[in-house]
Amino acid sequence: MKVEVLAVGTELLLGQIADTNGAWLGEQLALAGVDSHFHQVVGDNLERIVLALRTALARADGVVVTGGLGPTHDDITREAIAEVMQVPLVRDPAIAERIRALFASRGREMPSSNLRQAEVPEGATPIEQRQGTAPGLVCPVGRKVVYALPGVPHELREMFARGVLPDLRRRLAEQGATGVIASRVLRTWGLSESALGERLAGRVAALDAAGGNPTLALQASGIEGIKVRITAKAPDPGSAGAMLAAEEAEVRAAVGDAVFGVDGDTMEAAVGRLLLERHLTLGLAESLTGGLVSARIVAVAGASAWFRGAVVSYAPEVKWQVLGVPEGPVVSEDAAEAMAAGAAKVLGADVGLALTGVAGPDELEGKAPGTVVVGLVLPGGPPTARRLRLPGDRERVRQMAVISALDLVRRALLAAGPPAR
Amino acid sequence: MKVEVLAVGTELLLGQIADTNGAWLGEQLALAGVDSHFHQVVGDNLERIVLALRTALARADGVVVTGGLGPTHDDITREAIAEVMQVPLVRDPAIAERIRALFASRGREMPSSNLRQAEVPEGATPIEQRQGTAPGLVCPVGRKVVYALPGVPHELREMFARGVLPDLRRRLAEQGATGVIASRVLRTWGLSESALGERLAGRVAALDAAGGNPTLALQASGIEGIKVRITAKAPDPGSAGAMLAAEEAEVRAAVGDAVFGVDGDTMEAAVGRLLLERHLTLGLAESLTGGLVSARIVAVAGASAWFRGAVVSYAPEVKWQVLGVPEGPVVSEDAAEAMAAGAAKVLGADVGLALTGVAGPDELEGKAPGTVVVGLVLPGGPPTARRLRLPGDRERVRQMAVISALDLVRRALLAAGPPAR
Repeated sequence: MKVEVLAVGTELLLGQIADTNGAWLGEQLALAGVDSHFHQVVGDNLERIVLALRTALARADGVVVTGGLGPTHDDITREAIAEVMQVPLVRDPAIAERIRALFASRGREMPSSNLRQAEVPEGATPIEQRQGTAPGLVCPVGRKVVYALPGVPHELREMFARGVLPDLRRRLAEQGATGVIASRVLRTWGLSESALGERLAGRVAALDAAGGNPTLALQASGIEGIKVRITAKAPDPGSAGAMLAAEEAEVRAAVGDAVFGVDGDTMEAAVGRLLLERHLTLGLAESLTGGLVSARIVAVAGASAWFRGAVVSYAPEVKWQVLGVPEGPVVSEDAAEAMAAGAAKVLGADVGLALTGVAGPDELEGKAPGTVVVGLVLPGGPPTARRLRLPGDRERVRQMAVISALDLVRRALLAAGPPAR
Repeated sequence: MKVEVLAVGTELLLGQIADTNGAWLGEQLALAGVDSHFHQVVGDNLERIVLALRTALARADGVVVTGGLGPTHDDITREAIAEVMQVPLVRDPAIAERIRALFASRGREMPSSNLRQAEVPEGATPIEQRQGTAPGLVCPVGRKVVYALPGVPHELREMFARGVLPDLRRRLAEQGATGVIASRVLRTWGLSESALGERLAGRVAALDAAGGNPTLALQASGIEGIKVRITAKAPDPGSAGAMLAAEEAEVRAAVGDAVFGVDGDTMEAAVGRLLLERHLTLGLAESLTGGLVSARIVAVAGASAWFRGAVVSYAPEVKWQVLGVPEGPVVSEDAAEAMAAGAAKVLGADVGLALTGVAGPDELEGKAPGTVVVGLVLPGGPPTARRLRLPGDRERVRQMAVISALDLVRRALLAAGPPAR
């Protein structure tokens, strides 16, 4: 079964608001086992909404249309659906009564324009409005269907689950479709997209040869690293989960500890887990990143158990006077090591991590933008430093520095062995 | 002139990532005076990309297609465009060389798959890649045009401005399109959307009565405050600019110093300008915001002239030992004042700003989540503190605290009078 998504609203075309409903609906349809090959966005124009609906119905078994169900004169999704169904709009007295009651309960009189929301294409079934004033609609078009939902995200989500999904499931069952689709994301850092692709090429070929289920897909996500997505189709959630787990093991075997997390896991959460297991605390000295590492860390739930704080030493004097770094070049291995040791000492932390470098656009101390030196000190060892060359503009260099530095901590903790038991 | 937007990527259909490029491109096209009536999203499937391109070209004069220009086997936007143009793909040696050099500069060997990115539909003009490895493409299709841009937002934005906009402008001029649309955003903080609406109601009515050019629109942007957008249509950029300037003066007269910046201006840049004019430097003590204020500040170009650094005192001991705060409750006016004074002293800054509070989800020291205390010390004055109650979850409380605290500094500097001359 194929269902397209159509978002209606001139404000979406003009970029005044972003279409977040499309992504959410796409995910829900996929999880329900429905293919969604095209999404469209169109403005508040009757002719174009009709064209978009007809285009979608020509290619697919159904359409979820969002937006354009409000009370104002440019909310014309109802009219467009009626035209596609070739039926008139009729007023539904129950909906009109409910809208009137909603206004009364708020002590306000109902503007008459709100009665537009009680108009329903003849033959369509309303989906009761529970949160806003606009009801949804299930509109049969021959053997196909148009679902109309409000554009307000929380109203749409509730109404999709209550009014659309059951009807979709019934249609899927009628078509004899069964099964679920599940997916899992393995998040990696340290290998390029093409290097990952090469390491996984054999696995991709083997899966293709075996019928293409599960599938593997790479997804570059900028400073969030490269994601490896495993997607499995199975008769039930249990077997889908088993397929995902088996394939996760294969991917981990192929790409090693480039995998730092699963699904919503972040690099900073991965570092936090390793520190917590080892009963270690972390302190930071940040120069070019100016607090970005610290800000990411405090967003991790429970970070106070392992994070002490940071010194943002943007002015060189702060490095010298607060962190005790000897005066001299600040973009250097010596400075990075002294900063890491100073951070651990001043903040009372077991592990010290320091970042210094040149975000750009100008050179500093004769070093090119993108030059970053990361200092690290672990308990009982001497401080070490590692120089990186990062691409991109000022903002990107900073963001790449953040995750690169956290990945160095992650790998150093892994290399130091498992936690004592 | 009409130009559609087509986003390519199965991950967009599946909702794994949201299409933020569509909204951005829609806004840019509107600002260029180009109509964009349909946006489409399609997966990594040759037949469907070709269909989507042909559909768009049948309705419009051009298409901006984003995504599918990467090196992997499912990046097939190039192939789809070549099919629509009915030409072969040919390798561009200059692009191949540039990709090879990029890998070499990072000390890595280029996987051969990357050479796919050097393939160009015959007759298309590449847009040089400056940030990533994928070049953009300007592809004539008869008298119409397909622009192909990478899906990575920062690469897309830079390449659109450099490679697409000039070509669009040339085509607009050829069509005899006259007139420009220009807009300016005044960014505000401290007044609610309805309070702003009331202050501007008279102005909006006057503009409507005079023909609706320029127009005013309010746009709530969460932690970025509320934007007042002025849009003017005029025969040439000069007169559009004059209309914007005149209307900006009207808006400022109506809403006062709630306006902190114009267009891309940020609150932190506004604070920086005021400090710089007064030859003052700033030092921070951050507790619940964990480095967020500092990270925003160092993103301001030239911040090193007025920003000294920060102490992120996540652990209470850091407040006591590094900032010299007397031991006691940390979410209090006393603690915030001592943190501000400590930050100024330890970091050698003229102005000290401190943030302490409860991000949530749990209470701290009996104070509810959303309780934030901001401490501030200006030269020659005693430290002061201000308690705020901010709405939302942990992340939102933090973000609101950042901009609220910076706004307090801005208003305190303005209240202290103009800089000495």
